[in-house]
Amino acid sequence: MDIAKGLIAIGAGLAVMTGMMTGIGEGFVAGKAVEAIGRNPEAEGKIRSTMILGIALSETCAIYGLLVAILLIFAF
Amino acid sequence: MDIAKGLIAIGAGLAVMTGMMTGIGEGFVAGKAVEAIGRNPEAEGKIRSTMILGIALSETCAIYGLLVAILLIFAF
Amino acid sequence: MDIAKGLIAIGAGLAVMTGMMTGIGEGFVAGKAVEAIGRNPEAEGKIRSTMILGIALSETCAIYGLLVAILLIFAF
Repeated sequence: MDIAKGLIAIGAGLAVMTGMMTGIGEGFVAGKAVEAIGRNPEAEGKIRSTMILGIALSETCAIYGLLVAILLIFAF
Repeated sequence: MDIAKGLIAIGAGLAVMTGMMTGIGEGFVAGKAVEAIGRNPEAEGKIRSTMILGIALSETCAIYGLLVAILLIFAF
Repeated sequence: MDIAKGLIAIGAGLAVMTGMMTGIGEGFVAGKAVEAIGRNPEAEGKIRSTMILGIALSETCAIYGLLVAILLIFAF
């Protein structure tokens, strides 16, 4: 096993860290959603479906990082 | 034991750090949920279920990091 | 003892740092919970049980980091 393989592992670790801040962003979406439901419980269905859409769109950033990490581990 | 193995360990450590900020995001969700329940205790069921859904979706980011760390430790 | 072992120790140290921000997130939950109880003391039971649930869910992120650190120390 040579040093290059270890450096690839560090690259993969850094790549997946892309998703780090997505956790804050998605938490903000869900936090504001529960706040809105508390203020207007009748709108729960609309709020929840928009929350899921927003989180799904944010999630793409984390998936980019995961994709590159997986590529570095298995295809590099 | 060679240096490459140590570098892979650093890569795994970096990978699992992806979940770091998810802790803030999930805390924000739960914080807003308790705030909303304090304001409107009747909506507790709706607020709590949306909170759990939001936290579960945010959790995926942390799980990506854990996945890559486990892959680096056992499969790389 | 060679350098690789020291690098694994750095990896384990980085891994457990995952729990760092979880401390902020959980503190935010508890802070909002006491705020909400101060505003609406009748809802204390509901607020407290949702707070405990929210903190337990956030805690998972820190546990992932601890798990990887333990794996690096004992199983790598």
